Amino acid sequence: MLVKGNLLTFRQGSGAATAFTEIRSMEVVDGFIEWIGESKNAPTADNVVDFGNRLITPGLIDAHAHPVFGGNRVTEYEKRSQGATYQQIAAEGGGILSTMWATRAASEDELVATGKKRLNWMLANGTTTLEAKSGYGLSLDDELKMLRAIRRLGQETPMDVIPTFLGAHAIPPEFDRDRSGYAALICNEILPRVAEQGLAEYADAFCEDGYFDCPTTDRILTKAKSLGLKLRMHADQLTRCGASQLAADLGAKTADHLEQTDLEGIRALKDANVQPVLLPASVYALGLHHYPNARAMIDEGLSVVLATDFNPGSSPTASLPFVMSLACTQMKMTPEEALIACTLHAATSLDRAQDRGSLEVGKRADFVVWDCQDFREIPYWIGAPIVEKVFIEAREVFSRA
Amino acid sequence: MLVKGNLLTFRQGSGAATAFTEIRSMEVVDGFIEWIGESKNAPTADNVVDFGNRLITPGLIDAHAHPVFGGNRVTEYEKRSQGATYQQIAAEGGGILSTMWATRAASEDELVATGKKRLNWMLANGTTTLEAKSGYGLSLDDELKMLRAIRRLGQETPMDVIPTFLGAHAIPPEFDRDRSGYAALICNEILPRVAEQGLAEYADAFCEDGYFDCPTTDRILTKAKSLGLKLRMHADQLTRCGASQLAADLGAKTADHLEQTDLEGIRALKDANVQPVLLPASVYALGLHHYPNARAMIDEGLSVVLATDFNPGSSPTASLPFVMSLACTQMKMTPEEALIACTLHAATSLDRAQDRGSLEVGKRADFVVWDCQDFREIPYWIGAPIVEKVFIEAREVFSRA
Repeated sequence: MLVKGNLLTFRQGSGAATAFTEIRSMEVVDGFIEWIGESKNAPTADNVVDFGNRLITPGLIDAHAHPVFGGNRVTEYEKRSQGATYQQIAAEGGGILSTMWATRAASEDELVATGKKRLNWMLANGTTTLEAKSGYGLSLDDELKMLRAIRRLGQETPMDVIPTFLGAHAIPPEFDRDRSGYAALICNEILPRVAEQGLAEYADAFCEDGYFDCPTTDRILTKAKSLGLKLRMHADQLTRCGASQLAADLGAKTADHLEQTDLEGIRALKDANVQPVLLPASVYALGLHHYPNARAMIDEGLSVVLATDFNPGSSPTASLPFVMSLACTQMKMTPEEALIACTLHAATSLDRAQDRGSLEVGKRADFVVWDCQDFREIPYWIGAPIVEKVFIEAREVFSRA
Repeated sequence: MLVKGNLLTFRQGSGAATAFTEIRSMEVVDGFIEWIGESKNAPTADNVVDFGNRLITPGLIDAHAHPVFGGNRVTEYEKRSQGATYQQIAAEGGGILSTMWATRAASEDELVATGKKRLNWMLANGTTTLEAKSGYGLSLDDELKMLRAIRRLGQETPMDVIPTFLGAHAIPPEFDRDRSGYAALICNEILPRVAEQGLAEYADAFCEDGYFDCPTTDRILTKAKSLGLKLRMHADQLTRCGASQLAADLGAKTADHLEQTDLEGIRALKDANVQPVLLPASVYALGLHHYPNARAMIDEGLSVVLATDFNPGSSPTASLPFVMSLACTQMKMTPEEALIACTLHAATSLDRAQDRGSLEVGKRADFVVWDCQDFREIPYWIGAPIVEKVFIEAREVFSRA
């Protein structure tokens, strides 16, 4: 198949990559890009799909999401609109634990059914690869159930789903007075089963004093690493407790959130080659204003990733274009930096840059056809349905009405 | 036709209206709601359309928009992401005047064609009635051209479009050194033609020192009123120069923006029964943080309206659900207040509450079927394609893929 359009490619310059759209044709064979270049040099093909002057980008990659859960948290959302804080809501029994109860009550089939609906929202926004975390089960059986649901979402939808075990997301009520007991359960019972059953590629932890402090996070993620899991880490969201340095010390692939990270932390990430994954939609949805310091991270040479953090509490958005809009308007990232952060840099953070994240020969034909000409229009026309078609391995998986 | 679903109706209580969804059926005849009530009491009908437990709301009403223009301003958007302010961009020849040049260069047909695309974006977000302003022509011929394009958008799309003359949007370069000359042109040449040709129902002005100060706005809008136009007014966006008081004195239907309005201004609006139209997406897209004080306005008893301010510079969003999200997360309006602000209150502000803005007997069957059950999910799942179908006068005008 020969695909024609305004193909967006990235050229690695001396500094940041440059997005440009001179390339006009790509040949796709067996779901992969076999050739890309000017139309006049294109190989002959029986099947030509011509999108005219429409923009074609790589499929978007969401590197931090919690798409599997029971229930929703609209009531909390309403309470926050009336002035309650996230912390007040948690103290009243809301927050992550309310989703834990709903997730424990849901069957695996129910989690798959609601998850599919949310993955369709993501597809409609151009996402083709999705990282998905457990962390609302918080018991052996319920964490395994969530991870099985995540695996089925990868099998039963067109989306490529990369599973992350996040047992260390919150302390379940059974262990409220025995926090180290929960860490022991994760290390001795849950993690070995997750690894044995091949249910996760990554392990993650919510590293924060009062939840999983640095020593506990270290213990859990060191165990995960010894079992062959790669690491991601929720770091510096609420306070600065040394999580960035720990992520660096552990050799995590990513440190995520980083709202409170200072220059010292940024340099620790840089020195250890840990990628920052920024989640501005969670700042936005909580009605806060302290966004992570993306500019300092970019200036230090880090390959910043943007992700939705899709979850029912702090970030109920399935839209990476909206996250790009937040990055441009609230964090002073350029549209180019924002787009690379949701494609190539996100692929790198998931160890997938060898086969996706950009339109290049040898990579998967995961791409989005946009009803616009210029990539800067993606964050600009926020809320407009400009995703026209989505392809995964050259197969059309979404088409707009 | 009998329509079944989770019909959202408003009950006027002692204070704010209450959104609730007990009503399950409505009978629609000739595009109007003839009966509404419990299904068990429903009249027999040959044609029953059952949306199950899906939420059905009134069609959304966008009471402040600039959907007709040439070109776009993505380059400015990118510059702002790099730190330039709106004022710096205007000083470099960008801003409203760059859109003026592109709009003057466009034919009426071109304005209609691009306008249709944008109205389709709005339909896909649930908007069924749209206020549309001129104001990028800034000459007799170009303002009339814009208003004719706006009229055609109402004729050639399913959307009901309410035209507003906004010649006093910016000072065109021809009058840079003769600002009162431009006011004279508006009063003596353009307004009489607009009125004579019936091209506008409202007149509006950007009342701000350095643009159209209070005396000049007074002169223009008093003339408009004498020609039978009703009034709306851009007030207190950048500074507080007395615009709210002027809107009250002139008996304008609305005062729009109000980012800088203080309690005195709010009380002046209340005393004169002028509705505030708040435009948080323009605050957001400019990367600012000073939102209008919606809570004080609601507390004073004003019927707050929310609108997109859709325009290529400060607010390139066609989505009222996104505006509702901004209201809930950034302005501490409740989801209920936000929804009423985009429906019933917006209808009132456009003098249309007699036939739309709520699901009531005698009103038009303009409604949205949402792929959710609870109205609070509209701002909550921001970016998800949950608008399933849109009906205008009972005719299906949008259906999701």
